[in-house]
Amino acid sequence: MKRLQEIADKIRGRVVGDGRIFISNIASIQEAGQGDITFLTRYSFATQLSDCKASAVIVGKELAANQDVQNIIRNMVVVDNPALAYTEVAEMFDTPKHKEPGISQLAYVAEDAQVSSEAAIMPFVHVGRGSIIERKVTVYPFTYIGENVRIGEETLIYSHVSLYNGVTIGKRVIIHAGSVLGSDGFGYTWDGTRHRKIAQLGSLVVEDDVEIGANTTIDRGSLGKTFIGRGSKIDNLVQIAHNVSVGENSIIVAQVGIAGSSSLGRNVILAGQVGVRDHVTIGDNVKAGGGTGITKDVAAGSNIMGTPHMPHREWLRLQHYLKKLPDLFHRIDAMDSHTRVTATATRQAGGNPSSERGEPGAHEVGGGEAGYPRVGGGLPSEGATRAPLMEKKLVQEEKK
Amino acid sequence: MKRLQEIADKIRGRVVGDGRIFISNIASIQEAGQGDITFLTRYSFATQLSDCKASAVIVGKELAANQDVQNIIRNMVVVDNPALAYTEVAEMFDTPKHKEPGISQLAYVAEDAQVSSEAAIMPFVHVGRGSIIERKVTVYPFTYIGENVRIGEETLIYSHVSLYNGVTIGKRVIIHAGSVLGSDGFGYTWDGTRHRKIAQLGSLVVEDDVEIGANTTIDRGSLGKTFIGRGSKIDNLVQIAHNVSVGENSIIVAQVGIAGSSSLGRNVILAGQVGVRDHVTIGDNVKAGGGTGITKDVAAGSNIMGTPHMPHREWLRLQHYLKKLPDLFHRIDAMDSHTRVTATATRQAGGNPSSERGEPGAHEVGGGEAGYPRVGGGLPSEGATRAPLMEKKLVQEEKK
Amino acid sequence: MKRLQEIADKIRGRVVGDGRIFISNIASIQEAGQGDITFLTRYSFATQLSDCKASAVIVGKELAANQDVQNIIRNMVVVDNPALAYTEVAEMFDTPKHKEPGISQLAYVAEDAQVSSEAAIMPFVHVGRGSIIERKVTVYPFTYIGENVRIGEETLIYSHVSLYNGVTIGKRVIIHAGSVLGSDGFGYTWDGTRHRKIAQLGSLVVEDDVEIGANTTIDRGSLGKTFIGRGSKIDNLVQIAHNVSVGENSIIVAQVGIAGSSSLGRNVILAGQVGVRDHVTIGDNVKAGGGTGITKDVAAGSNIMGTPHMPHREWLRLQHYLKKLPDLFHRIDAMDSHTRVTATATRQAGGNPSSERGEPGAHEVGGGEAGYPRVGGGLPSEGATRAPLMEKKLVQEEKK
Repeated sequence: MKRLQEIADKIRGRVVGDGRIFISNIASIQEAGQGDITFLTRYSFATQLSDCKASAVIVGKELAANQDVQNIIRNMVVVDNPALAYTEVAEMFDTPKHKEPGISQLAYVAEDAQVSSEAAIMPFVHVGRGSIIERKVTVYPFTYIGENVRIGEETLIYSHVSLYNGVTIGKRVIIHAGSVLGSDGFGYTWDGTRHRKIAQLGSLVVEDDVEIGANTTIDRGSLGKTFIGRGSKIDNLVQIAHNVSVGENSIIVAQVGIAGSSSLGRNVILAGQVGVRDHVTIGDNVKAGGGTGITKDVAAGSNIMGTPHMPHREWLRLQHYLKKLPDLFHRIDAMDSHTRVTATATRQAGGNPSSERGEPGAHEVGGGEAGYPRVGGGLPSEGATRAPLMEKKLVQEEKK
Repeated sequence: MKRLQEIADKIRGRVVGDGRIFISNIASIQEAGQGDITFLTRYSFATQLSDCKASAVIVGKELAANQDVQNIIRNMVVVDNPALAYTEVAEMFDTPKHKEPGISQLAYVAEDAQVSSEAAIMPFVHVGRGSIIERKVTVYPFTYIGENVRIGEETLIYSHVSLYNGVTIGKRVIIHAGSVLGSDGFGYTWDGTRHRKIAQLGSLVVEDDVEIGANTTIDRGSLGKTFIGRGSKIDNLVQIAHNVSVGENSIIVAQVGIAGSSSLGRNVILAGQVGVRDHVTIGDNVKAGGGTGITKDVAAGSNIMGTPHMPHREWLRLQHYLKKLPDLFHRIDAMDSHTRVTATATRQAGGNPSSERGEPGAHEVGGGEAGYPRVGGGLPSEGATRAPLMEKKLVQEEKK
Repeated sequence: MKRLQEIADKIRGRVVGDGRIFISNIASIQEAGQGDITFLTRYSFATQLSDCKASAVIVGKELAANQDVQNIIRNMVVVDNPALAYTEVAEMFDTPKHKEPGISQLAYVAEDAQVSSEAAIMPFVHVGRGSIIERKVTVYPFTYIGENVRIGEETLIYSHVSLYNGVTIGKRVIIHAGSVLGSDGFGYTWDGTRHRKIAQLGSLVVEDDVEIGANTTIDRGSLGKTFIGRGSKIDNLVQIAHNVSVGENSIIVAQVGIAGSSSLGRNVILAGQVGVRDHVTIGDNVKAGGGTGITKDVAAGSNIMGTPHMPHREWLRLQHYLKKLPDLFHRIDAMDSHTRVTATATRQAGGNPSSERGEPGAHEVGGGEAGYPRVGGGLPSEGATRAPLMEKKLVQEEKK
C-alpha cells in the first residue's frame, strides 16, 4: 500500500490528480480495478482506455497531452520513459525471492565447502567439495552444486539447477529452474571403430548480472572456457555449446542454439529458435530475427533473417519475390509462346534465331491455368490436415 | 488376463471367432505373440498381416470384410472406430501411475500447506507454504512445489517438476518429468546502461485435463496470467512465454515455441518446432505444419506452413515452383538469346526495340550447362559433408 | 605430471625435441603456457602459431614437415592422426567422474532393488522397486530411477535424470543432467468430445556406449520400444518420440526433434535443430545439415539440407538461384518490354502473336528501379529492429 505521490517520486514523475490516494497493486489496463495503478501505451490507448477501472495511470508525456486521455483519467503520473517507470513500479510491488539466511537440515553440504552465513540453502540442496557460496545467495531445493563451484553474492538459483564441477557464477545472477550449466561439450573422434569421447576439460564462467531461463543448457569448454558476459540475458530452453563466448548485455531468446566455439559480441539480440553454426563470429549489436540460421560471420550492427542468414532487407525482398514466383512462371509461359510465335514470324520475316534447343514448353508448369502442382512438395498425398512434420501418430490416428 | 468377449464388450465390438480365449496383453502387429491382442490398420494390413502371431485382432468394419483378412485371422473383434477401440484396450492393460495415499517421511511439507489425506507425496518432494494439494493427487520424487500453489484432484505430477509460487493446476492434469511451470517471463527494459529486469508479477493457470510433456517450460504472466485451456495437450521441450493463452483441446507438439502474449484458439494443432511470434492471435482449428514460423494473426480454420507462414496450399505451390527455379533460369537464358536475336532480326526487318539497357547475359547464370554454382550458398567451401549448421567440432575433428 | 616421451608413447607418436620434459596439462594453442602440451591444426597454424607458449605441441606429419613449424616449435610429438592423439592425451589429463562405491545414507533405495556393492549412489537418489544397478555404475544426486529399471555396468548418470519405469540402459552409457528417459509418448484419440490419452505401454532401450546430453527427452514406445543403438551420441535438448529407432554410431546434435516411429540407420548425422517427421526411414550414413526438415524417407548415404529436405547440392543450387531472383524479375521486365515491342514490330512486319492474355506489366515488380517491396513479407511495419519472431515483449518495450 503506497500513496500515489510516493510512487511518482520514485519514478521521477508528475502527478496530475490526487497524489494522496492509496495504491495497493499494479495491473494491466484490462485487469486493473479499484486501488490499482496501471500504465498506458499507444496500443492500449487506442483500444482499452475507455474501459479502464484503475485508480491511477502511468502515462508518457505525449499521451498525457491528449484530450481524450485527460478526460478519462482522473489520476495520472506523467513520466519521460513509461517503460522504465513501469519496470520501477513493478519492482515496488514484487515479492522477494531471496530467503532468510541459513542452511536447511535437509540439505547436504560437503565438509570443506564454504557457505556464507548470510546465504540461504533450502532443503534438498547438494553442495559438493570445495565449492564456495558467497553472502546473500539463495539456492532453491533440488539444486545440485558439484565440486569447486563458485557462486557470487546475491545470486538466486531456483530449483533443479545443475552446476557441474568447476563452474563459476558471478554476482546478482538469476538461474531459473532446471538449467544445466557446465555439462560436457559434444565432441568425439572417430577412431576407426567407434566415436571416442573427447574429454571436456574446460570450464564455464557466467559473469555478473546474467539471467538464465528455465531448462537451458550451457556446456563447459573442451579446453579453455565457455563464457557468458556481464548483463546478458538468456531465455528458456536455449543451448549454448562448448567454448561459445557471449558478449555483454546480449539477449538470447528461447530455443536458440549456438554451436561450438562461436562468439557473440555485445548487445547482440538473437530472437527465438535462431541457430548458430560452429566457429562463427557475430559482431556487436547484431539483431537476428526468429528462426534465422546463422552460417557464417556477421558484421557488427547487421539486422539479419532467413536460412542461410541474409540482411533483413534482402530477406524481405526475397519474400516479396517469392510471393510473385507462381505469377512469374505464368508470365514466362505467355512470353515464351510470344517469343516462339514471334521467332517464327521473324523467321518468316527473315530472322535467324540461333537455337531452340532446351526450350521448355508452357505445359511444363504444373498444369497451366490451375497453377497448382499435382504432386505436393514434401508432404504426403493424404493432404494438408494430416501433413505436419512431427505431428506424430496423433493426427494420424484421429484420421482413421 | 481377460477373455476376448470381455474386451469386445468394453469396446462395443463383435467377436468373430472364439470369444472365450484369454488375452494377457496388447502388442503391435509385429511383436504380438500367443495370448496377445493386436490391431490392424490399412497400413499394417498390406505389409504385416501374414506374419501376425497374435491370438486376436481388432479390426475396422471395412477391413473385416476383406477376404484375406478373414482367411488369416482366426479371432477378431470388429469395431466402428479402431483407433478409439485401441485406446480403450490399451487402458485395460495399463498399469496405474498413481500411488497409495500418504506423505513420505523423506518429503518436506511446510507446516501450513494443506495436503489431502488421499494424496500421495513420494520421497524427496518439497511442498511450500500455503500450497494446497487435493485428493488423489500423486507427486513423484524431486518435485518442487513452491508457495501458494494449488493442485486439483487426481492430478499426476512426475519427477523433477518445478511449480513456482502461485501456480494453479486443475484436475486430472498430467505433468511429465522436468517441466518448469511459472518461471519468470523474459522481459527487460534498457535503462540506458543495462537491461533492467521487469518483475514478473502474474501467474499461471493450467485447467483440467491438460497433459504437459517432459522438460517443457511455461512462464508466468508479467501481469495477469498465462493460461492453458481445458483438455489441451502439450508435448516435450515446448516453450510457452508469459501471458500466452492456449484455448481448449489444442495440441502443441514437441519443441514448439510461443512468444509472449500470443493467443491460440480451441482445437489448434501446432506441429513440431513451430515458432509463434509475440502478440499474435491464432484462431480456432488452425493447423500449422512442422517448423512453421507464425508471424502474424491466423484466421480460424487455416492450414498453414512455411516461414513466414502461408496457406498450406500456397506453400505446396511455392515448393513446386522452387523445384523448377533452376530450369526457369536456363529457360530465360534461352529465351533471352532468342529475344536478342529476334530483336536484331526484327530491327533488321524494321522493328524498333525501345531499350536493351540492363539486360543480363546468359553467362551470368552460374556457368551455363552445369547449372551449378561455383560458390555455395552459405556453406563453407570444405564441402557438404562438413557443412551442417551446429554440427560442431565433432565433424570437423573427424575430418582432420 | 607426465614426461613428454610417456605421452608420445601413448599416442604412438615420435618426439622431435626433448622427451624428458614434464607436461602438467593440456591446453588450447592460445591458452597454453609453460608446462602445457597443445596441438596444432591447419587453422591454428596459420593464425596462432607464432604466439604459442606451450612446452610441447602435437603435430600431424604434414605440418611437421613445414619449415615455419620446425623453426618455432622446440618440442613436438609427430603423429598420424592428430585428432585421435588429442583425444587420447585429453583422456590422460581428465579427472574421474565415477565415485567411490557405496550407497549414501541420504539416498532412497527400495527394498527389493538390487544395487551392486561396487556401484556409487550419491545423496538424494531415488531407486524404485525391482530396479537393478550393476557394478561400477555411478548415480549423481537428484536422479530418479523408477521401477524395474536396469542400468548396465560402468554407466554414469549425472544429476536430475529421470528414468521412468521399465527403462533399460546399457553399459558405459553416459547420461547428462536433466534428461528424461521413458516418458509417455504423445498420443491421443479424439473420442468425439475430448482428446483421450493412449496409454503408453511400451519401453525404452538404450544400448551400450551411448551418450545422452543435458535436458534431452526420449519417450517410451506406445507399444514395443523406443531404441537407441550402440555407440550413438545424442546432444542436449533433443526430442526423440515414441517408437523411434536410432541405429548404431549415429550422431544427433542439439535441439533435433524426431517424431514418432521414425527410424535412423547407422552412422547417421543430424546437425542441430533438424526436424524429422513421423514414420520416416533414414538410411545409413545420411548427413542432414542444420535445421533440415526431413519430411520423407532418405536413401542411405544422402547429404541433405533444407525444408522440405533435398540433396545438399540441390539446396546449394537453389540458394544460388534465390540470390538471383530479384535480378531475374528485372531481367524479365526488360525482356518483356522487348518482347512486347518486338511483337508489335513483328506484327507490323507481318507476325501473328497468338495472345497477350495475362501478361503482367513490368510495373508489378515492387516499384521498378528500387526493387524493394513497399510492404514487407511477414514482418510488421515498425521495421527490422522490432521484428524478430519470438522476440517477445522485450524489444518492444525497449522501443517505447
